[in-house]
Amino acid sequence: MTDASTPTDRIWTAALIVVGDEILSGRTHDKNITQVATWLGVQGIRLREVRVVPDVESAIVEAVNALRARNDYLFTTGGIGPTHDDITVDAVAAALELPVVIHPRARAVLESYYATRGGLNEARLRMARVPEGASLIENRLLGAPGIRVQNVFLMAGVPHIAAQMLDALTGQLEGGLPLLSATIGCWTAESEVADLLRETEQAHDQCQIGSYPFFREGRVGANFVIRSVSADAIAACGEAIEIGLRASGREPVPGGI
Amino acid sequence: MTDASTPTDRIWTAALIVVGDEILSGRTHDKNITQVATWLGVQGIRLREVRVVPDVESAIVEAVNALRARNDYLFTTGGIGPTHDDITVDAVAAALELPVVIHPRARAVLESYYATRGGLNEARLRMARVPEGASLIENRLLGAPGIRVQNVFLMAGVPHIAAQMLDALTGQLEGGLPLLSATIGCWTAESEVADLLRETEQAHDQCQIGSYPFFREGRVGANFVIRSVSADAIAACGEAIEIGLRASGREPVPGGI
Repeated sequence: MTDASTPTDRIWTAALIVVGDEILSGRTHDKNITQVATWLGVQGIRLREVRVVPDVESAIVEAVNALRARNDYLFTTGGIGPTHDDITVDAVAAALELPVVIHPRARAVLESYYATRGGLNEARLRMARVPEGASLIENRLLGAPGIRVQNVFLMAGVPHIAAQMLDALTGQLEGGLPLLSATIGCWTAESEVADLLRETEQAHDQCQIGSYPFFREGRVGANFVIRSVSADAIAACGEAIEIGLRASGREPVPGGI
Repeated sequence: MTDASTPTDRIWTAALIVVGDEILSGRTHDKNITQVATWLGVQGIRLREVRVVPDVESAIVEAVNALRARNDYLFTTGGIGPTHDDITVDAVAAALELPVVIHPRARAVLESYYATRGGLNEARLRMARVPEGASLIENRLLGAPGIRVQNVFLMAGVPHIAAQMLDALTGQLEGGLPLLSATIGCWTAESEVADLLRETEQAHDQCQIGSYPFFREGRVGANFVIRSVSADAIAACGEAIEIGLRASGREPVPGGI
């Protein structure tokens, strides 16, 4: 019998669309991919794909329709502000074939926020526009809320505002078992232990092993990251890697380098 | 008459696929998007879309086929090392319906590089595997080269190795006019100047204007980035923004804040 509060084996997935010419031009270094990825991991949801698309409606529409259909959740960052280049709401509405309407609560939030900041002008009212049927993702930091419509979550592009919106969603989305990980480092070329890694992964079918080489302090090394939903499986797999490294005269560094 | 060395009005485009579970898990913060985007800009090539995909062959194949067809160039980063989780070569070969072969020059490069580093074992020889017909992108830093096959460029995931591969490609790819940009900052809420930005963009059809708000030193501000292939058009558009800001009692900050 499964307790309703127990995460099941079902894997919950999400995708992220980063909307922004400023990322594609190289001007701005994206910070939302890492922050959304990390947050999703804690919710028991796997980030399966990210697309960075320009501020062009057809590009956003294509990405929204491709990704919302094959994931449980779709997040977007960017393009929900008050200026002419903020077109994410219109694009998502177009993708979902919904009209754009003024959300009364978003309007009230903005009216209150801007009461002491020059009042609600037409540009600011743009931030109350939502695809019909949407609900709001409240944001304690600023007036403009994020938007949820069906399985699509529209968030701000400014990373610390997006962080507030994620915080508001914490614990609100159904997820599965979080993907756990453990890292073992070693001062070795990964190409010298490739057989060990491949064979160990094959012998531990609940685990994936990623190998991430680096060059530091004038030496080559690598971190081996074991991922699984089972802490026991990770422990067993990690022990096998450590034994294998020691057997070849190498010293594992638990926790990574 | 057009000089063959003169960039034309044709817009050259590229896409980037970042291969890596470590990005999607949030463990590693991607640095290749910004570096590839910036490098492409200098080559006169526009980065049109980025996808981050997991270390899963079918996911890489789908992204390769979608993006190579609609862009002049497709770049990939990650998954070309010696370990079992490095599957980009196989995935690109599958997408292009090509067999994977050992590239004789890549093998020679690796033999030479590893002669004083323990010799060429089976794992290291994996890095000489290429889709049939590929050429190499030499990499002065390390033995393993990048790979060019048709319009697809496979590069390392480690950012400083990818940088070496980009360096080797500098000036080698046909491009168009570089996209230029100029930034004007202002200590104002972007929602207060949204009309000015929209109307100025409409009046300068060779330019796009992006508005990027921020919160710094306890104040709101924004940078307005004008992009165009024409320096003259950018100058005229920038002047219009500066005049508009001053007309409303705001002080433009040329170069941005």
